[in-house]
Amino acid sequence: MSERAEIREVGLRDGLQLVKTILSTEQKLEWCRRAAQAGMAEIEVTSFVPPKVVAQFVDADAVARGATMIGGFTAAALVPNLRGAERAFETGIAKINYVLSASEAHNQANVRRSTQESLDDFVRIVALRDEVAKGNKGKISIGAGIATAYGCTISGAVSEKRVVQIAEQLARSGADEIIVADTVGYANPAQVERLMRAVVCAVGFRPVACHFHDTRGLGLANVTAALDAGVRRFDASLGGLGGCPFAPGATGNINTEDCVFLLESLGYETGIDIEALVSLRATVESWLPGERFSGAIARAGLPKTFRMPIETAA
Amino acid sequence: MSERAEIREVGLRDGLQLVKTILSTEQKLEWCRRAAQAGMAEIEVTSFVPPKVVAQFVDADAVARGATMIGGFTAAALVPNLRGAERAFETGIAKINYVLSASEAHNQANVRRSTQESLDDFVRIVALRDEVAKGNKGKISIGAGIATAYGCTISGAVSEKRVVQIAEQLARSGADEIIVADTVGYANPAQVERLMRAVVCAVGFRPVACHFHDTRGLGLANVTAALDAGVRRFDASLGGLGGCPFAPGATGNINTEDCVFLLESLGYETGIDIEALVSLRATVESWLPGERFSGAIARAGLPKTFRMPIETAA
Repeated sequence: MSERAEIREVGLRDGLQLVKTILSTEQKLEWCRRAAQAGMAEIEVTSFVPPKVVAQFVDADAVARGATMIGGFTAAALVPNLRGAERAFETGIAKINYVLSASEAHNQANVRRSTQESLDDFVRIVALRDEVAKGNKGKISIGAGIATAYGCTISGAVSEKRVVQIAEQLARSGADEIIVADTVGYANPAQVERLMRAVVCAVGFRPVACHFHDTRGLGLANVTAALDAGVRRFDASLGGLGGCPFAPGATGNINTEDCVFLLESLGYETGIDIEALVSLRATVESWLPGERFSGAIARAGLPKTFRMPIETAA
Repeated sequence: MSERAEIREVGLRDGLQLVKTILSTEQKLEWCRRAAQAGMAEIEVTSFVPPKVVAQFVDADAVARGATMIGGFTAAALVPNLRGAERAFETGIAKINYVLSASEAHNQANVRRSTQESLDDFVRIVALRDEVAKGNKGKISIGAGIATAYGCTISGAVSEKRVVQIAEQLARSGADEIIVADTVGYANPAQVERLMRAVVCAVGFRPVACHFHDTRGLGLANVTAALDAGVRRFDASLGGLGGCPFAPGATGNINTEDCVFLLESLGYETGIDIEALVSLRATVESWLPGERFSGAIARAGLPKTFRMPIETAA
C-alpha cells in the first residue's frame, strides 16, 4: 500500500491575487467544484483581506459560503488578521489559514505590525474560534502559515532558529497545522530538508505543510526535499497561476498538475486525477486571457511509463 | 572548501538540433567563446551525424576545429557511429561523446541498428581512438551515453538491470566516462537515485554524468537526486534550448543557468558566472527568433540571499 501525500489547491487565492481579470463568484465555485471532482481534498477558496486591498476578493463571503455548500472537500480561506477571521467564521467555513511573516520587514509591509503582534493576534483568533466552535457541531480548523521562512526580498536571510521558534509558538497557541512558506522563491533543497526536519521535529505532534513558489525553478526539487524531511502536505496552484510582485514575469506557486505528477511518480497516493486537472486548467486559462500559465505536464502529457512497474537493477 | 560539480553545455548540440534557424559557424564559435569565458569547463560543440540528417551540423568539422583552437575548455562532439568518430578525430577535437539507446526500438529508430551492434561499434571506435592517439600528444577522451535510460516513448519502460549492464559493458570497452540520459523526460527523483546508485556502483572507477530533459518539469529535482547518488557531472542547455520531437511545445534539456543556480545554492562549486550566462542567453535568444527559451533565473534574478550564510536551527 502506498503512502498518502496531499496537495491543496491555492490557485483561487494565491493564484488570483495578481491577475488582471476579476472572476465571477460562479466561476470561482465552478473551479472549486471541478477541483473537488478531480480529487482535491482541500482548496483555499478565497482570502479575507480587507475588500479594498484586493478587488478579486470582494466576494470572499459568497465564495466561502458557496464552497462550503458544495461539500466533498475542505474549504479553507486565508485570513491576515482578527477581523478577517471574524468574517471567515461567520460564513461557516471549515478551515482558516492565518499567515504571518518570519521577516519583520515583510510582516510590516504586509500587515503593518510586528511579527510578535501578529503572534499575539493569533492567540485571539484561536480564542475566537474556540468561542465560535462551542455553538457548532464541527470545530473549525486553523492552519498557521510562516511566510518568508527561507528568506525575504526586503531583508534577505531569515534565521532558521527564528522560523522554528515561531512554528513552536504557533503550535503552542493552538494551530492545528503549521505551513512553512517560501513566499519569494528563495529556498533550495538543502535548506528545505534542513529547516523542515527542524520544524517537523519541533511541532511534530501537528501536521506540517509546505508552500513553495517556483520563482527560481527549484519548486519541485524543494518538494522532493520536504518529502525526505517527512512533509506530506503541499500547497500548489493550478497552471502555476500566480506570481511574485517583486519579480515581474516570474512564475508563481508550484504547479498543481506537475506536483501531483511528481508525487504519484514517487509512489505517493494523492487521490487526484491529473487529466481532470489539465482539463480544468484549460477552462481557467480561457477565463483569464493574457495571464501566464506554466507547467510541463499540460504541454508534454504523462509519460507512457506513468504508474508502470520498472525492473530495477537490485 | 566546497565540493566541485560540473555542468557541461549541450545547447550547441542538443539545443540546436530542433531549432528552425541555422546559426553561422562564427555564431557557434562566439557561443563557445563566451560560455568558456563564463567558466564552462566542457562544451559539446557539435554533432557528427551525417550532414544530410541535420542541416544545423553541416559545419561540424569547422566548429570542432574552431572550438578546439579557442582553448580554455574541453571541446566535445557527439558521434552516433564509427564514421562520425572518424570525422571527429580528424578535427583534433579533445573529446567525443558516443551515444546508443538502452531501448532497442529507440536505437533502431535513431541509428538503424540493434543496441548490441552499437556496442560492437563502440569497441571499434575505441580501437580507432587508440590508433589515432598513438601519433598525438594528448589522448582523446571518450564519453559513452546511454539514451532512454529511464524509459522510451516508443517501447515504454526500460529495465534498470539492462541500463547497468550496458554501462558496465561500455566501461569495460574503454569509455572514459558514462553518461546516463533521460532522453524523453520520463525520469523521477526516486528512479534517478536508484538507477544512478547502481550505475555509479557498477562503473565507479569511471566518472558518471547525467543528461536530463525537463520535459515533464522534474529536471532539477532529478539533478538533486543524482547528487544524492554521487553524480557530479550534468549536461544542460543554455536557456533550456532544445525540445522533444515527441512532445511539441514541451521544454527540452534542463536549463544551464537554473542548474548552475541549483548547484551553487546547494554549496557546490561550479566555477560558472551565472550573470555572464544570462547575458550570453540573451544574445543567443536574439539569434534564434521564435524559439522557446525557458528558465527561471533569467526572468526572476538571483535571490538576495544567494551565497549568504544562514543561521541554522541546529
